[in-house]
Amino acid sequence: MSKLLDQIHSPADLKDLTPAQLEQLCTELRTMIIRTVAKNGGHLASNLGSVELTVALHRVFGTPDDQIVWDVGHQAYAHKILTGRKDRFLTIRTQGGLSGFPNRQESPWDAFTAGHSSTSISAALGIAQAKALKEKPGYVVAVIGDGALTGGMAYEGLNNAGRFGKNLIVVLNDNKMSISRNVGAMARYLAHMRTKPGYLKAKSNVETVLNGIPLVGKPIWKAFHALKAVLRSLLYNSTLFEDMGFYYYGPFDGHDLPQLTEVLETAKTIDHPLLLHVVTEKGRGYSFAEQNPGAFHGVSSFDVQTGRAAAAKKETFSSVFGSTLCSMAAEDSRICAITAAMKSGTGLETFSERFPQRFFDTGIAEEHAVTFAGGLASQGMLPIFAVYSTFLQRGYDQMIHDVAIQRVKVVFGVDRAGVVGEDGETHQGIFDAAYFNTIPGVTVYSPAYFDELIRDLHRAFYETPGMVAVRYPRGAEGFRPADFLHRGEGFDQYGDAAAPALLVTYGRLFAQACRAQEVLNSRGMAVEVLKLDRIKPLPEGALQAAARKKRVFFFEEGIRTGGVGEHFESLLYEKTAFSGTCRIHAIENFVAHASVSQCLQALGLDADSMVQTITTEWEN
Amino acid sequence: MSKLLDQIHSPADLKDLTPAQLEQLCTELRTMIIRTVAKNGGHLASNLGSVELTVALHRVFGTPDDQIVWDVGHQAYAHKILTGRKDRFLTIRTQGGLSGFPNRQESPWDAFTAGHSSTSISAALGIAQAKALKEKPGYVVAVIGDGALTGGMAYEGLNNAGRFGKNLIVVLNDNKMSISRNVGAMARYLAHMRTKPGYLKAKSNVETVLNGIPLVGKPIWKAFHALKAVLRSLLYNSTLFEDMGFYYYGPFDGHDLPQLTEVLETAKTIDHPLLLHVVTEKGRGYSFAEQNPGAFHGVSSFDVQTGRAAAAKKETFSSVFGSTLCSMAAEDSRICAITAAMKSGTGLETFSERFPQRFFDTGIAEEHAVTFAGGLASQGMLPIFAVYSTFLQRGYDQMIHDVAIQRVKVVFGVDRAGVVGEDGETHQGIFDAAYFNTIPGVTVYSPAYFDELIRDLHRAFYETPGMVAVRYPRGAEGFRPADFLHRGEGFDQYGDAAAPALLVTYGRLFAQACRAQEVLNSRGMAVEVLKLDRIKPLPEGALQAAARKKRVFFFEEGIRTGGVGEHFESLLYEKTAFSGTCRIHAIENFVAHASVSQCLQALGLDADSMVQTITTEWEN
Repeated sequence: MSKLLDQIHSPADLKDLTPAQLEQLCTELRTMIIRTVAKNGGHLASNLGSVELTVALHRVFGTPDDQIVWDVGHQAYAHKILTGRKDRFLTIRTQGGLSGFPNRQESPWDAFTAGHSSTSISAALGIAQAKALKEKPGYVVAVIGDGALTGGMAYEGLNNAGRFGKNLIVVLNDNKMSISRNVGAMARYLAHMRTKPGYLKAKSNVETVLNGIPLVGKPIWKAFHALKAVLRSLLYNSTLFEDMGFYYYGPFDGHDLPQLTEVLETAKTIDHPLLLHVVTEKGRGYSFAEQNPGAFHGVSSFDVQTGRAAAAKKETFSSVFGSTLCSMAAEDSRICAITAAMKSGTGLETFSERFPQRFFDTGIAEEHAVTFAGGLASQGMLPIFAVYSTFLQRGYDQMIHDVAIQRVKVVFGVDRAGVVGEDGETHQGIFDAAYFNTIPGVTVYSPAYFDELIRDLHRAFYETPGMVAVRYPRGAEGFRPADFLHRGEGFDQYGDAAAPALLVTYGRLFAQACRAQEVLNSRGMAVEVLKLDRIKPLPEGALQAAARKKRVFFFEEGIRTGGVGEHFESLLYEKTAFSGTCRIHAIENFVAHASVSQCLQALGLDADSMVQTITTEWEN
Repeated sequence: MSKLLDQIHSPADLKDLTPAQLEQLCTELRTMIIRTVAKNGGHLASNLGSVELTVALHRVFGTPDDQIVWDVGHQAYAHKILTGRKDRFLTIRTQGGLSGFPNRQESPWDAFTAGHSSTSISAALGIAQAKALKEKPGYVVAVIGDGALTGGMAYEGLNNAGRFGKNLIVVLNDNKMSISRNVGAMARYLAHMRTKPGYLKAKSNVETVLNGIPLVGKPIWKAFHALKAVLRSLLYNSTLFEDMGFYYYGPFDGHDLPQLTEVLETAKTIDHPLLLHVVTEKGRGYSFAEQNPGAFHGVSSFDVQTGRAAAAKKETFSSVFGSTLCSMAAEDSRICAITAAMKSGTGLETFSERFPQRFFDTGIAEEHAVTFAGGLASQGMLPIFAVYSTFLQRGYDQMIHDVAIQRVKVVFGVDRAGVVGEDGETHQGIFDAAYFNTIPGVTVYSPAYFDELIRDLHRAFYETPGMVAVRYPRGAEGFRPADFLHRGEGFDQYGDAAAPALLVTYGRLFAQACRAQEVLNSRGMAVEVLKLDRIKPLPEGALQAAARKKRVFFFEEGIRTGGVGEHFESLLYEKTAFSGTCRIHAIENFVAHASVSQCLQALGLDADSMVQTITTEWEN
C-alpha cells in the first residue's frame, strides 16, 4: 500500500519524485494519518488540510538547516512522517511515543515546540534574526492558520517582522474564513500574475519611479502623493499585511502542489518579509471530515469506515458546565458567556444557540476576552469566561489588572484543569491553582463531581464577591464513595474522624484518595480524607481539622511550588496548633503526553502511588 | 491666575464656555499640570498633549453616563482636574492622595482602572456591549495612544470591536509616529472632507449602490467586484482599521478645539465603530517638554523655570544593569538585548547605541518579546529581555511555553521588582517571585546590591542552565553593613551564627533586616540575618542554616501566597530536621501609591516594623 512512503526516509528523498508520484505520496500520507488518528485520537481535519503544503515546503526548502515553525502544531503530522518518524508514527500521543505537536526534544526537524496559538511568527523572527547575526545561510518559514491570526501575539509578530529587512516567509494556511477583503476570484487571478518573475520586476520598477517623487513640499506634489497611494494600493493589493510591512501574495490553492512549489521557489528569491496566503480545505481527502471539519478537528478514536466515534459520548464536566449555564442564564439575563474559539470544547454550543446576544466568541484572544469580561462586569453584567486552564495562562496579567484590581465580579470556568493526557506538556492544566494563588482577592473552587460543579457555579455567581474561578478536569467524573456527603463549608471530610492521619486533596484526586484510603485502612493505617472544595481562600475549618492530626499528606494535581499544598502547609504550621508532620506530593516538572491515568501514575498521584507513598512515610 | 478653572466643578460647567474661554481653560490646565508634576513627579509630556482632547471629550459627551476609557491612563490628569478632583490634584501620586492613573475606586468618572497598556478597546467594548444588552443609552469612548497600538491586545480589541454593530468610538491619540501610511497633507485634507455631513451622506449612497452588485456568479461580475474593491479603497481611505471593521477618520489636529468638537459631535451620529485619528504634540505648552518629550514622559520633581531635575541623577540598578550588559556584550557577540518600549527605563540606551544590531525594541509587545527571545536562544544566541516586573506578567504564558518548555537559555532582567511606590497598585512588582515559582526549571536571582547584580548577570549567562531571571528593585541600592561579605552559594549570612533566631529575606529588604537586627541585638534578642541571593531553586545550605534555629522569621517584598516564603517554609519543615517555629511576613493585597518607604512601612516590611513584629512574636 505505502509503496512510495516506504522509500521516504528524510525530506531529501522527495526531491526526485515526479508530479504523479507526489500526488500518490499525498494520498499515502492521508491514509496513514487517518488510520493513526482513528486509533490514537488527535487532530485530524487540520492535518489532512496541510498535506500538500507540507510536501511542497519539504521539497523546496532544505530542512532542518532551513526551519519550518508550525503555529499551534496541530498540522504537523505529515511533517513528522516525512522527517524520519514514519516508523514511530503509530505511537503518536501515547506514553513514550511521538508528541502530537512539534517538539524540539524529539527531532532536529521540529524547529520550535508548539501547542499554544499565534507564537510562530515571533519564534521564526527570532530564528531568522539569529541566523542573520551569525551570518548563517538558510530560510525560515512560519506556517500559521487563519484562526491563529486572531491572536494579538500574531499581530505583534507581524508588526516586528515587517521591519526585518531580509527574507522571512509567513505562510497563512487559510482553511476557514476570509481574513482579507481581497479574497475572491479576481484576487486569485492577480496573485497568479504576481508570482511571475515579470510581475516582480515590474513592481520593482514602478516602485523606483514612485520613490523618486518627493513626499513633501509644494502643493503640486500633494496630488502626486495621493496618486502614489492609489497606485500602490492597486499594485500591491494592499492589505493588513502590507500595512505591517510584509509583501502579500495570494491566495493560492493549498492543494495544488505544482503551484505551491512554484510560489515557494519564487518566495526564496525575495529579500523581504513575505506573507503567502494559501487556502486549504480542512479534512481534505476524508469525506466525513470534509463534511464536518469542526467535529474532526480534535477527535478521540473512531471507525474509519463510518466516521463514528469508537466510544459513546459520555457526560463530561464541560457538558454539565454548559447545561448548568443555560439554566442559569434562562433565569438571569445578566449572565454572559465568553469563549476564546473553544465553543464546542467548553460545552457552550447550546448556550450560543439559546442566548446568541449574550454569547461572545473572541477568537483566539484570551487577553481581550478577560478584559472584555471586566468591562461587561463593570456595568453589572455577570460574565463568565469558559477557557482551558492552559490557555488562561495568556490572560494572567489581565486577570490581575482588568478584573482583580477593578474589583469586579468575573467568573472563570476553568476547563481541563489538571493533567489533560495525550496533548502533553504544552497543554497540561497544572499551573492554574498556583497562578490563581498569586492574585489577591480571588476565590477558587475545585469541584470533584458534577453536582459540586453545579453548586459551585451558583456560589460563584451569587454567593462569592469579586473574581471567582471554578476549575474542573477534562472528561467524566470519577469514583465516588457511596456514603460520601457534602458538608458545604468549602471542604468535606470522608472516613474516620478519629484517624491519626489525614490525606488532603482536591478535585479529581479525591476519587484516588478514597480508593487509597480503603486499602490503607484495610492494612491498619487509619486515614481520614479531607477534600477541599474551595482552594482559595483555604477554609478555616479544614485547617483546624488537619491541626488535630499527627500526620498530614497533601496530594495535589498541580505544580508544587506556589501551589495549594504549600499554602495549606504554611497556614497549618503558622495559624494552628499543629505539631505533627506534613508532606506534600505534587507535580515538580512539565508532564509529557500519556493517558490521564498513566500521567497520574507517573506523577505518583494515583491511588496505588498514594498507598505506597503513605506506607513508606508512615514507617519513617 | 486660575480664574476659569475655579468655576469648573464638573464637566457640565464646560458647556457654556466661549471658544476664547476654552482656550484660556486649556492654558490654566497646563499650568496646573506642570506645577503639580514639577512637585510630585509623574507623567508630564503625555498629559500636556491631551489637554484639548480632554476638554473636547468632556464638552461633547455627558460623562459619567457616557464613559471615557483612558488607555494606560498616563494622559488623564486634565480629566481628573475637570471631574471634581481639582482641589485634591496636588495630592496626586502621594500616600492617601489621588492615583496617578484612572481608578474606579476614586471617581465615577474613571470608567476603568488603568496602568498597563492596550486594554482600553477591550474594556470599552465590554462596557458598550453591557449597555446595549441593558438597553441603556450613552456613548463609550476609548482613548488609546499610538504606542499602545503596538500591543497585540489592542489588535484583539479592534478585531472584536469591529464586529460590534453600534456606535463605539476609539480615539487614536497619535503623538509620535505614523501608524498609518495615509498620514500626510492630502490625507488631512480628505479627512476634513470626510467629517462633513455631505461626505457621510455620499459615502452611504455609494455603499448602497455597491452593495447592490452581486459578489458571486457570472464572470462579468468579477470585474465589478474588483472595481468595487478599488472604489471602496479610494472612498474609505482603507487602513488597518478599516480591515478590522472600523470606519476611519483622520488625522485631525488634536490641539484644534473647535475641529475636535465638531468631529466628536459628528462621531456621535454614526451607528458603527469608529476610529478617530487625532495627532497631538507630546509636552505641548511647556518648551522643555516639547523639545525633549521622551525625557519628560515620566519624571521626578523638577524646577519649572529651568526644566532641570530637582535631584542629581544617581546610579540605579537599571543604569548598572545597562553598563554591565554593555561590558558583557563587548566580549560576547551572542548577547542580544530586548526591550518592550522601555529602552530608557531599563537602562539600555547606551547598549542600543553601541550594539544596534543586537538591540531589539519590540514596542509594547511583551508576548512577542519573550517568544522572539526563545527563537533567538534556539539558535545559540544569548538574549536578555529587560522588562519591568509588572509588565512581564503579560509574558507569563510565553515564559512557560516558549522558553521553559523549549529548554533554551533566555535571561530576564526583571527591573522594578518589589514595590515601585508612586505609580501604585497597577505597577507594583510584587508578583514576579511568585509567578516564577510556578515555572519548572527556572533559576531566579534577587541581588540586593549593585555588585551582586553584576555577579548574578554573569552567573545567569554563563553558570546557570536554562531560563534565568535576575530581579532587582527600582532606584538606588540601600544601606549595607560594613562587615557584610558574600559567600556566593546562593545565600549570605550576616551576624551571629549562634543566635537562636533567624531573619530570612532577599533583595532590597536585606538593608531593612540589617537595621532591624542591630536594634534587636541591642535589646537582647540575638538574631542572625540570612539573605537569599538565589530564590529559586532555594539553596540547600540556606535551609540547613535555618534548620538549626529555634525561630525563623521570613520577610518578603512580594505576594505571600505562592511566594518564596511559603516554599522556603515548606522545604524547611519537610526536608530538614527543623523543629522550631517559622513565620512569614509578606504582602497580602494590592499596594496603593505612596513612596517606596511609605509602602514598606504600611506593609510592615521596613526595619521598624520588623523589630516590632519580631519582638511581639518573640514573646509568644
